[in-house]
Amino acid sequence: MLALDVDPDANLAATLGFPDPEKIVPIVEMKELIAERTGVQPETMGIFFKLNPTVDDIRERFSVTHNGISLLVMGRIKKAGTGCYCPENAFVRELVGHLLLDEKDVVIMDMEAGIEHLGRGTSRDVDAFIVVVEPGRRSFETAGRVVELASELGVERHFIIVNKARGEDDRAFAEDFFSGKNIIGMIPYSEDVIESGKENSGIRIEDMTPINTIRDKLMKGVMNG
Amino acid sequence: MLALDVDPDANLAATLGFPDPEKIVPIVEMKELIAERTGVQPETMGIFFKLNPTVDDIRERFSVTHNGISLLVMGRIKKAGTGCYCPENAFVRELVGHLLLDEKDVVIMDMEAGIEHLGRGTSRDVDAFIVVVEPGRRSFETAGRVVELASELGVERHFIIVNKARGEDDRAFAEDFFSGKNIIGMIPYSEDVIESGKENSGIRIEDMTPINTIRDKLMKGVMNG
Repeated sequence: MLALDVDPDANLAATLGFPDPEKIVPIVEMKELIAERTGVQPETMGIFFKLNPTVDDIRERFSVTHNGISLLVMGRIKKAGTGCYCPENAFVRELVGHLLLDEKDVVIMDMEAGIEHLGRGTSRDVDAFIVVVEPGRRSFETAGRVVELASELGVERHFIIVNKARGEDDRAFAEDFFSGKNIIGMIPYSEDVIESGKENSGIRIEDMTPINTIRDKLMKGVMNG
Repeated sequence: MLALDVDPDANLAATLGFPDPEKIVPIVEMKELIAERTGVQPETMGIFFKLNPTVDDIRERFSVTHNGISLLVMGRIKKAGTGCYCPENAFVRELVGHLLLDEKDVVIMDMEAGIEHLGRGTSRDVDAFIVVVEPGRRSFETAGRVVELASELGVERHFIIVNKARGEDDRAFAEDFFSGKNIIGMIPYSEDVIESGKENSGIRIEDMTPINTIRDKLMKGVMNG
């Protein structure tokens, strides 16, 4: 599996328990290296992608692997108030697009919270959106906006996962709100998960059953869609 | 009090229990109106702000009021994949800057989650950052990045509020992580708040004591800073 951390507040490595996550250098900071190797200057990255649509080597060269998961960290915001990030975003969008097209493996992208990234279209080439919500009207409404904007990007498959669900009430509330549509599973609220979130070793999940069920359904849903 | 919702996933009106929140038209969609009134076209908004640095009338004309709170909703993402939002962001940044300078009242801005808005500098003119975290290493690390980026914007006062704190363990964990610095208060985990988050009438908080204490400390901290 290839995981892409596309959140500027990159913390997927830490969450997955990768050792020394702060030492992973994000892709957007490697432009010089990539330019060196391809002979194309960073400002003309668009051309690089036209000349070399295959980016298998990017995964090989820049990903880090832990517990069977390869991870590419896309970028971080390094300086406040530096203005327009659109060139960096365009670069990430192109790279992600090519990774999604070339990659034979399952690729999962961790996006930032909220809807802003949908304005940039970084995820326009995915097969499906997995929208993780918490039981609450605001979270559900945001999910509704995500689904709407995803459809505008041309991505028509959406799977909703209700996280931190506390029993039948939450299930009924979610099924009612979404009219039963698109909900692929619920992950129960767990003190264990919250406690492990204080540690330095990644999230520890004791009962993987709900997550494994969701994973199987997802694989089926994406393949058959 | 003037509240600014600067999150593209605007839901402050709904959270505060404003009636018909979906009917509030965001400021960025009123460019034509503003242009009409000032005689300046939207593309030249920068000039408008130079000619008319006073924006008291923007509050009067466009804010909605409920329970003593005036609210301005800045904008929403309306279409997916439309690319560069920098002109809109520049407009919002100028407007917010002038509102913060002119306004005699307390102004609170609700930013989007994460750190991306700090790259745009929308909040460069505030007196202080209030960073709301939940007990967990990832959330605390994000708060650390927010504080760092806020300092780069020239904002040196930072107050951390630990939300959904579940007793002494969480307090000790937070105080240890932040070395006791900057934590201005804790809001206890509450099933009531979560339940009220399912309703259509805004968040209902039964015990306001922790929040009132935080408010008093904040007012003192910002005034004396």
